[in-house]
Amino acid sequence: MVIGKVVSRVISTRKYDTLQGYKLLVIEPLNGDTKEVFVAADTIGAGEGEIVLVSFGSAVQHALHQQAPIDAIVVGIVDQEPTMPK
Amino acid sequence: MVIGKVVSRVISTRKYDTLQGYKLLVIEPLNGDTKEVFVAADTIGAGEGEIVLVSFGSAVQHALHQQAPIDAIVVGIVDQEPTMPK
Amino acid sequence: MVIGKVVSRVISTRKYDTLQGYKLLVIEPLNGDTKEVFVAADTIGAGEGEIVLVSFGSAVQHALHQQAPIDAIVVGIVDQEPTMPK
Amino acid sequence: MVIGKVVSRVISTRKYDTLQGYKLLVIEPLNGDTKEVFVAADTIGAGEGEIVLVSFGSAVQHALHQQAPIDAIVVGIVDQEPTMPK
Amino acid sequence: MVIGKVVSRVISTRKYDTLQGYKLLVIEPLNGDTKEVFVAADTIGAGEGEIVLVSFGSAVQHALHQQAPIDAIVVGIVDQEPTMPK
Repeated sequence: MVIGKVVSRVISTRKYDTLQGYKLLVIEPLNGDTKEVFVAADTIGAGEGEIVLVSFGSAVQHALHQQAPIDAIVVGIVDQEPTMPK
Repeated sequence: MVIGKVVSRVISTRKYDTLQGYKLLVIEPLNGDTKEVFVAADTIGAGEGEIVLVSFGSAVQHALHQQAPIDAIVVGIVDQEPTMPK
Repeated sequence: MVIGKVVSRVISTRKYDTLQGYKLLVIEPLNGDTKEVFVAADTIGAGEGEIVLVSFGSAVQHALHQQAPIDAIVVGIVDQEPTMPK
Repeated sequence: MVIGKVVSRVISTRKYDTLQGYKLLVIEPLNGDTKEVFVAADTIGAGEGEIVLVSFGSAVQHALHQQAPIDAIVVGIVDQEPTMPK
Repeated sequence: MVIGKVVSRVISTRKYDTLQGYKLLVIEPLNGDTKEVFVAADTIGAGEGEIVLVSFGSAVQHALHQQAPIDAIVVGIVDQEPTMPK
């Protein structure tokens, strides 16, 4: 999983039906040197600026009510940014 | 998922039968420093220059009518390029 | 799999129910140039500073009692940091 | 998927039985800055110097007659190198 | 798949039971610029300094007798280091 900060929201009108009902968040990972921004679905209600925990890959389906072409999902909101290596 | 811009189209005459009927798009990710271009299948009708949302991995199969060796698919067309971190 | 050092712990109050009961550890990989910190679930009891072996992706589910949106898990504690290439 | 050029062939005498019958090709991706060479199985008959489309991950199994520990496969031969971003 | 050189062995006394019986090898990829060392399970009997072919992800399970949280496995020993791009 990756810890990241919610940056903004993606609005997409033309999309797969199975993506309806998910917020799609732009997330900046807090994992060191790189800043490879990605998009994750959210059902928890994470807001901009919040620090979240995101899961990727096939594990995502275990967080969905119905299978969908989603490969990243917010699985938790982090209480406090943890200690990171220097 | 990744936000990217459609750059061009890949034409492949000799390919697996299960890839027939998909447009294969060259996509440039809009995710920060790197510019790791990739190819995604498309059934929504994304055109060159459009900003799209792409899913990867096993999640892709949930967007297909029939299982196929496809590991990236356009799942939405983004209305407007979202705010990205500076 | 990746060898890494346990750096700290992530506390998340608002999270998926299926993540309850796992320690969530910030891990710094010991794999060369990059320092792409990630978060892995732990059931073995790895402590801060310990060197651990982490598995990713769909293989993680084979270490869980119940399917969960977890994509990285500590699968072993390494007795001694192995020889790495110079 | 990734577009790449076939560089050479890997010969492995001691390998899993389920890998018998596949050509194993060294492929150089044509995706921008990095040149992370990888190995993909091939059943289409791609030759050295040809430009191919390669799929990765669990999608690969949908191109095999029998499940095998193969994580990358040539799914098409590209007619002409597509336009890439500058 | 990735071609790599076996560097050393990882010893882990406290680990998941389903990892018993596998050698765990530190492998240095031979794929270009980066040197992202990883750990792969081995059942073929690869020794230090040998050049091996490694598969990742869900494909690994097709090389195991029993499902296990293993995400990388040696699938072949390479007879001779293949030609790589300059």
